[in-house]
Amino acid sequence: MSSTLQIQRIKESKRSLVDFDNLQFGSQFSDHMFVCDYKDGSWQNPSIEPYAPISLDPSAKIFHYGQSIFEGMKAYKDEQKNTLLFRPLDNIKRLNISAKRLVIPEFPEDLFMQGLTELLKIDDQWIPTKEGSSLYIRPFIFATGSGFHASPSTEYKLIIATAPSGAYFAGKVRVLIEEHYARSANGGVGFAKAGGNYAGQFYPTQLAIEKGYNQVIWTDDTSHEYIEEAGAMNIFIRINDTLLTSPTSDRILDGITRKSIIQIAKDAGISVDIRKVTVNEVIAAAKSGELKELFGAGTAAVISPIAAFGYQGTDYDLPDLENSYASLLKKKITDIQTNKSEDPYGWRVLIK
Amino acid sequence: MSSTLQIQRIKESKRSLVDFDNLQFGSQFSDHMFVCDYKDGSWQNPSIEPYAPISLDPSAKIFHYGQSIFEGMKAYKDEQKNTLLFRPLDNIKRLNISAKRLVIPEFPEDLFMQGLTELLKIDDQWIPTKEGSSLYIRPFIFATGSGFHASPSTEYKLIIATAPSGAYFAGKVRVLIEEHYARSANGGVGFAKAGGNYAGQFYPTQLAIEKGYNQVIWTDDTSHEYIEEAGAMNIFIRINDTLLTSPTSDRILDGITRKSIIQIAKDAGISVDIRKVTVNEVIAAAKSGELKELFGAGTAAVISPIAAFGYQGTDYDLPDLENSYASLLKKKITDIQTNKSEDPYGWRVLIK
Ligand SMILES: Cc1ncc(COP(=O)(O)O)c(C=O)c1O
Ligand SMILES: Cc1ncc(COP(=O)(O)O)c(C=O)c1O
Repeated sequence: MSSTLQIQRIKESKRSLVDFDNLQFGSQFSDHMFVCDYKDGSWQNPSIEPYAPISLDPSAKIFHYGQSIFEGMKAYKDEQKNTLLFRPLDNIKRLNISAKRLVIPEFPEDLFMQGLTELLKIDDQWIPTKEGSSLYIRPFIFATGSGFHASPSTEYKLIIATAPSGAYFAGKVRVLIEEHYARSANGGVGFAKAGGNYAGQFYPTQLAIEKGYNQVIWTDDTSHEYIEEAGAMNIFIRINDTLLTSPTSDRILDGITRKSIIQIAKDAGISVDIRKVTVNEVIAAAKSGELKELFGAGTAAVISPIAAFGYQGTDYDLPDLENSYASLLKKKITDIQTNKSEDPYGWRVLIK
Repeated sequence: MSSTLQIQRIKESKRSLVDFDNLQFGSQFSDHMFVCDYKDGSWQNPSIEPYAPISLDPSAKIFHYGQSIFEGMKAYKDEQKNTLLFRPLDNIKRLNISAKRLVIPEFPEDLFMQGLTELLKIDDQWIPTKEGSSLYIRPFIFATGSGFHASPSTEYKLIIATAPSGAYFAGKVRVLIEEHYARSANGGVGFAKAGGNYAGQFYPTQLAIEKGYNQVIWTDDTSHEYIEEAGAMNIFIRINDTLLTSPTSDRILDGITRKSIIQIAKDAGISVDIRKVTVNEVIAAAKSGELKELFGAGTAAVISPIAAFGYQGTDYDLPDLENSYASLLKKKITDIQTNKSEDPYGWRVLIK
């Protein structure tokens, strides 16, 4: 067992194979990854290695019992070519909140930051500089221990892999408010970034796509009356000049973009109301013209404005505003992330 | 692409390393596995190969989005050393029900039976003959396609692996009726054998274990008033001489043991009532002495009698009956499975 970071570099970089002017989201991977294994009761042998396939026993618990969690973060380059992260400690803390719920051993915060920092330095050339692009960072932990007994694994692997990425969505999205399916239960794992939550969303999302929408707006599973999340984003609703968003709960992910947007909006003098929002009041506001905006917020898509939503067979279009909160807030948060503006909150972290 | 079954045998069997008189559950694996890959829109290259590690890209969707499903079945040897399966078509059909909900391409039923049959013949010596032992069969499918976009994979792998196994539980179990956590949502994936359902159960189960119980009895996530499942088993409740079990729903797995037990019990003249059962009526029956038995039913544990249950800080002991339904029904189903009795239902399938 070793606890000092080992570094093994690739022989030949794959960077020249990537077209940095036309990046997709999360589909090409940088040269290296950070890897750490949990066994015999501790996280050990942290290393930076060439990004390469992993070998696993067919009985590894990840294949059978979905014991896995992940995070999503981004690294940006500012004009001076500094590498910047956005609230990385919040991701590490949330990773460990997810870990606890999935009975995965927590990962040491300092080792995480050390491994990530080294990785970003080694793969510095992989961080896109083009406006709107960034290095998407994917930390994940999964169960590697073996056996067909449905019980927690005793061995795990943490990997941090990165992918130079462009925009997640190509423009405004159309969403469907879900009336039947649900992504999470009361007392379930919805607040965790657990792999199984996402697979469960695919089918309802596919049905929505077949009907001409891009995403599902999740409602609570008991009554389907409350608006909770937008696909893999938190949701914001602007009625007149007030910005509404649901409080977090054990069904809703405590999004870092969400809480940053709440803070920025308040400081920009926008009235923000964190409360449960019913589908009915959104429909009523849409009919009366008081519904001004709907948008999703999350690391991958940043802010994703919604053009229209469907509910019970009817489509409701959102107006096309000149000065939308979505574009104002997106600019403000992106400017902080990329060091184009002051960061009064201390959210930006310089990698050095 | 090939659609004929390729067979590649191991060089040296590991069978001599296994102590067939002291088998645990699902912890040692037979020499071979059946493997089939989905790509370019079809299941292809079915093969029987040595049981060996699988290599996967770190961005394979199984690691990130929990897109995986599985089944659990058993093969038995009768006294004439015939190999027998129990209702295998029900497992294949349920695998495909799970597949649909998880947006995994359905697997052809005949190819499944062909691969499984060949596998059982090749690893015939791995099927335990000792009473109470069997060959546990684990078919599973997981997403192998790569990328950090939270969307269904376009590539999958099906594996059927087997493990000579002894009993799942070592005796009667103590269970805790869950008041806070839940395993599945209305409109969720609880009815599917999706990996993520099981990881979500680990934490509440761990809390129960710390309190001295073995398993959790799941209740509905909305009110926690209705008794739904027992860990990874369906649950039966005997009040006086009536056997109660919850109807299946989108939160409850349609267990093959459950439906077989219902049939056998009815034919044995036991009154069976399939209806929602509240925690309150079970407590009341426990207090009045009308609660005679509680047991779980599932392939792995067959029938698992419950010795006591806890609820809101109180423990309720079940009586120790001479002629329990649990032991009667366990004998009846096991006798059918192992060809010790007639099989009036046509459930037994001879492998030849
Ligand atoms: C379900 C869900 N909600 C919301 C979010 C947004 O969280 P964050 O802003 O921290 O990326 C995510 C992840 O991106 C998510 O998966
Ligand atoms: C959640 C759950 N309930 C019930 C069962 C029992 O189903 P079966 O009798 O088909 O094994 C299982 C699987 O074994 C299960 O995972």
